[in-house]
Amino acid sequence: MRIQRPTFQRPEPPAPNGSPTRVAITMGDPNGIGPEVILKSLHDPGLVPSMTPVVIGSAHVLRVHADVLGFSDLDIHVVDEVPDEVPRGDVALLDVADEAEPPVTFGAVTAEGGRLAMKAVERAVDACMAGTVDAMATAPISKKAINMAGYDVPGHTEFIAERTGSAKPTMMMVAGGLRVGLVTSHIPLAEVPSKVTEEAILEKVRVLDASLRQDFAIDDPKVAVFGLNPHAGEAGAFGHEEAEIIAPALEAARQEGFRVEGPLAADGFFGTQLDADFDAVLAMYHDQGLVPFKALAFDHGVNYTAGLPIVRTSPDHGTAHGIAGKGMALPGSMRSALEVAVAVARHRRQQTEAPAS
Amino acid sequence: MRIQRPTFQRPEPPAPNGSPTRVAITMGDPNGIGPEVILKSLHDPGLVPSMTPVVIGSAHVLRVHADVLGFSDLDIHVVDEVPDEVPRGDVALLDVADEAEPPVTFGAVTAEGGRLAMKAVERAVDACMAGTVDAMATAPISKKAINMAGYDVPGHTEFIAERTGSAKPTMMMVAGGLRVGLVTSHIPLAEVPSKVTEEAILEKVRVLDASLRQDFAIDDPKVAVFGLNPHAGEAGAFGHEEAEIIAPALEAARQEGFRVEGPLAADGFFGTQLDADFDAVLAMYHDQGLVPFKALAFDHGVNYTAGLPIVRTSPDHGTAHGIAGKGMALPGSMRSALEVAVAVARHRRQQTEAPAS
Repeated sequence: MRIQRPTFQRPEPPAPNGSPTRVAITMGDPNGIGPEVILKSLHDPGLVPSMTPVVIGSAHVLRVHADVLGFSDLDIHVVDEVPDEVPRGDVALLDVADEAEPPVTFGAVTAEGGRLAMKAVERAVDACMAGTVDAMATAPISKKAINMAGYDVPGHTEFIAERTGSAKPTMMMVAGGLRVGLVTSHIPLAEVPSKVTEEAILEKVRVLDASLRQDFAIDDPKVAVFGLNPHAGEAGAFGHEEAEIIAPALEAARQEGFRVEGPLAADGFFGTQLDADFDAVLAMYHDQGLVPFKALAFDHGVNYTAGLPIVRTSPDHGTAHGIAGKGMALPGSMRSALEVAVAVARHRRQQTEAPAS
Repeated sequence: MRIQRPTFQRPEPPAPNGSPTRVAITMGDPNGIGPEVILKSLHDPGLVPSMTPVVIGSAHVLRVHADVLGFSDLDIHVVDEVPDEVPRGDVALLDVADEAEPPVTFGAVTAEGGRLAMKAVERAVDACMAGTVDAMATAPISKKAINMAGYDVPGHTEFIAERTGSAKPTMMMVAGGLRVGLVTSHIPLAEVPSKVTEEAILEKVRVLDASLRQDFAIDDPKVAVFGLNPHAGEAGAFGHEEAEIIAPALEAARQEGFRVEGPLAADGFFGTQLDADFDAVLAMYHDQGLVPFKALAFDHGVNYTAGLPIVRTSPDHGTAHGIAGKGMALPGSMRSALEVAVAVARHRRQQTEAPAS
């Protein structure tokens, strides 16, 4: 099938505002595409200006990936502290590896790889909490590899939530002005109807609204909420959850002062101009929100973790072990993750420095 | 939210092949946007060439809509039989109304409106069966209005299936090279898991494959089949239907000689180049297939009814009573429905005239 792709409009990069924004970039699994998409992103002349990136991982691993890409004249500055500025094109790196030359085996899932990836995440979270960096962007890790290394967590989000003492982080997918949150995510479809409760919807509306204000500088955000069933239940013909659960949840949200509209038919939403009226969408389950998101965002999708005390973004793809070391990985999503990290960090800083009157 | 839309690549119109292709266009509900999108489509200089369109409905109703659009010099030729050719810009019309001036009340749901809409459909189906036209494209009807008029069917598809004696028509959504079929459609989400059976999947694969060959002239079609759960179950972590139902159904399909691949993660599919490898997608349920389809197709989506002895297409929108008579309706989907009707009719004719060696 030939599908015409959207020509994605990249958002205006945030204007420089005082000192550069310092972003820690964790290298991800050394045997996946993480180091490659980081190198390609930092090499991009269109990269967001006024950012000081610092990669956390291993200089040797980065060099191995750079050689594959033909970036042979790349200057890697191994640093002990986050520098104020890094010359464009060079890479500043905090080395957290146990050994000088950790093994790199493209496509392999190893305990060493998982351990190195998570040491970088630990260091980045601590730097964010200490304020020595303003945000972190995480390249993908392998769930299996980190489990082999003894980290008993499903992924970044849960690990970072625990380390920062955050109760309810929420994934928000971001691509330019398109923002999608989910009521339920990584559960079987058969369990979705029982997990779509008034309280779950209300809780997600609260987190989304707070993040849209604080992190995306939207004054009075308006959220579109999907129905659960086809055509949002078609007035009861295709299901009753809209009338019995979603509509009451939205009424409760309005009572709390939130601007929400729904339940809306999911299939009509992105096919009309309706989305232009809203600042974010709340979908009821994984595929309802992420299938259209990824179709529209293509390789620019960013996973933003709302509800954390620190700023954390990641690309919306995995380690892609199958194409690691081949130079084929598309860096658009990683580059967008850096842009969103910078934008959110600056919005938060502005709010701290000049609270809304 | 500002979402960049795909610039849709319209398919190359099929080359003229002997006599023009005659397409009956049923007018749809007189109080909805059907007459408007028909008029705008026929008025479009980029309309598919070498087609003889004939509208079936009421000259008076069409004139009322034409006046709203400012098409005051439009020539409506009321005909008794389908003409060989119609001058570009003019409209040939078969009048099936009981009265010379049926009422038009924009946005109203009426028994008269439902009755007029269905009389046009009856006439078009009969013309297709008799061979006096080569295809039909149906403007939207109101389910409620046709029920008020005594037609006890949920919509076009069931009515046409019954009138043509077809057992298993299947909706296929088409937009350029993007084609999406569904295993289940207008049922509550909670009922989806129990309706996704091996036999249901296999049956849809058979109908899709036959239609891709016969109607879209694809020699050896390859169909991508989605999983039911997030990430196609992630190896059992998010559900077991992939291993227990979908994979065995695909194995059975391969035994029957079909080229199928899956179960594939729905969210990754449209966000990568993966779709380029396939001629159609089979989704497990309504929103999984139609949300990304409509997001990508925008106003070019066509509903094609596979598995009928006649050729029938329709736009992928409804009567849109709320904007009827305002001149705001987008005609892209109706125009694409005419293009697909012509293309399918020509493919079928070619196969009859020159069977594959």
